Amino acid sequence: MHRLLILSRHARDYHRLVDAARLPDLEVTSAADPAEVAPRAAQFDLAFGEPSLLKQILPAMPALRWTQATWAGVEPLLDPALRRDYILTNARGVFGGLMSEYVFAYLLAHERRIFEKRASQAERRWDAAPPGTLRGKTIGLLGVGTIGGTLARTAKHFGMTVKGYTRASEDSRDVDRYFHGALDGELDAFASDLDYLVSIMPATKDTRQLVDARFLRALPSRAVFVNPGRGGVVDEAALAAALEEGRLAGAVLDVFQQEPLPADHVFWRTPNLVITSHTAALSFPEDIAPLFIDNYRRLLAGEPLKYRVNFELGY
Amino acid sequence: MHRLLILSRHARDYHRLVDAARLPDLEVTSAADPAEVAPRAAQFDLAFGEPSLLKQILPAMPALRWTQATWAGVEPLLDPALRRDYILTNARGVFGGLMSEYVFAYLLAHERRIFEKRASQAERRWDAAPPGTLRGKTIGLLGVGTIGGTLARTAKHFGMTVKGYTRASEDSRDVDRYFHGALDGELDAFASDLDYLVSIMPATKDTRQLVDARFLRALPSRAVFVNPGRGGVVDEAALAAALEEGRLAGAVLDVFQQEPLPADHVFWRTPNLVITSHTAALSFPEDIAPLFIDNYRRLLAGEPLKYRVNFELGY
Repeated sequence: MHRLLILSRHARDYHRLVDAARLPDLEVTSAADPAEVAPRAAQFDLAFGEPSLLKQILPAMPALRWTQATWAGVEPLLDPALRRDYILTNARGVFGGLMSEYVFAYLLAHERRIFEKRASQAERRWDAAPPGTLRGKTIGLLGVGTIGGTLARTAKHFGMTVKGYTRASEDSRDVDRYFHGALDGELDAFASDLDYLVSIMPATKDTRQLVDARFLRALPSRAVFVNPGRGGVVDEAALAAALEEGRLAGAVLDVFQQEPLPADHVFWRTPNLVITSHTAALSFPEDIAPLFIDNYRRLLAGEPLKYRVNFELGY
Repeated sequence: MHRLLILSRHARDYHRLVDAARLPDLEVTSAADPAEVAPRAAQFDLAFGEPSLLKQILPAMPALRWTQATWAGVEPLLDPALRRDYILTNARGVFGGLMSEYVFAYLLAHERRIFEKRASQAERRWDAAPPGTLRGKTIGLLGVGTIGGTLARTAKHFGMTVKGYTRASEDSRDVDRYFHGALDGELDAFASDLDYLVSIMPATKDTRQLVDARFLRALPSRAVFVNPGRGGVVDEAALAAALEEGRLAGAVLDVFQQEPLPADHVFWRTPNLVITSHTAALSFPEDIAPLFIDNYRRLLAGEPLKYRVNFELGY
């Protein structure tokens, strides 16, 4: 008999969805608050939930063998002070569509000038200013995993040229040119002709402040930066300065080094900056529960689990 | 020797593009104003330009054999009082991509609540309200020609269900269910589960006020109507009433019965209505000139011209 702890803000939804799958040999306990289950934590060999909550109870779970995260980002569990003697799997393959809708909502909003047209309408002004088009524009993707691959496919659908920066993989056929390793020598080759730069990088020691002052200077002033990935990938002060000085046409940010964004943060008064409050790709229990259910069946069958996280790489 | 009259606001661009093609046996005259060339109108056997301008000079062109319109919509030339003893071809196959960018810019803006998020940001408020998604939603297309087919393909890319209303054709494989003929008996079957209704219908006697009070009542109140087609397809007063009474979630209108939209038009004060001032798919000379050039070569070769308009059907 396996003993599963579901620890999530959506504990009730996940409990219902896991129950509905009628998984064998499984006893399920669920809670939205770690304190509620802390006295019984030692009994659970499996966990499923939000990394930020699981982190709080991890030291009290000596029997833990496997944890399924409900998020793609698992940074809370990567703290070197924490145990790593269990299998950690994260949520993948479910965010690509939502991320694509998010990114292209704002790319198209930029091309179609929808905020400007709305302002004209508020003044009851017929505004026949011609819009732009994505066709023929160039997008640079920082990170081309399953999400980046989906973004590349949508970019191709709209007739764009796609550049991709990855650690090593070249899995997406929708990327026209790949870049790897330190971008130092190739920064101009990657960045100097981009209309859009999109980061879907995980937060790791290698990606920390990758988009820094030097990177931003390599972009053309017409470029728009979109970040639905992780806030730590960006030097926020350098980005604010680039926008303030008009060296960048715009930025659309879903994630930040501190969330919620502090009330006194410079971004609240930075021009041409859009703040979307970490809603680009939410984890809906209906999408995420099947990942746990599939992996649990694999566990019972003695098969390798899907989407295992490498603690060293951080993704 | 053929004698071509280019009559367009972009006369200079078209003249340059046609010259660059070095077409044989062709003498080109161009003007932006019909009055300028009226005295010489009798000499031209070919015309290329905006229907609204060509209409003014048509009676003075007895030698006219073929007219290539720079627009998709040719209503000015369909006036029954005007001659129809020449071949009329319109612009097709070039607007699909732009129309798709227009329609999906606003569909995604609606799902992602980008205007609401912008308002929150203006108040320096972290707004984590969850967005919607196009995945699983249903779109109804009024008209599935080359433009509708492109919209259907983009809808499928985003995981939508597609219903298509056409006169007879079922050319797009991206349409899940087709409707034909008078919608009277099938209006509920077509409209009652739509999240989005998009009209790319030409303006003809059969499409006049097709989207009337009854049609609007058949839509669910969550639906958004998008019209980048022709204004005459819509009963504007009925649409304003539906929005005013909250029977429709929104409308995005690019075209109107009178353009520019008069200053006292009810639409300027109708809630949940977006006005985009006839910019959804502009005719760029770089896209349109190749249509004339290709058709001219067909004319010389004695082949049928592409995109010939049927004066009776109106498209």
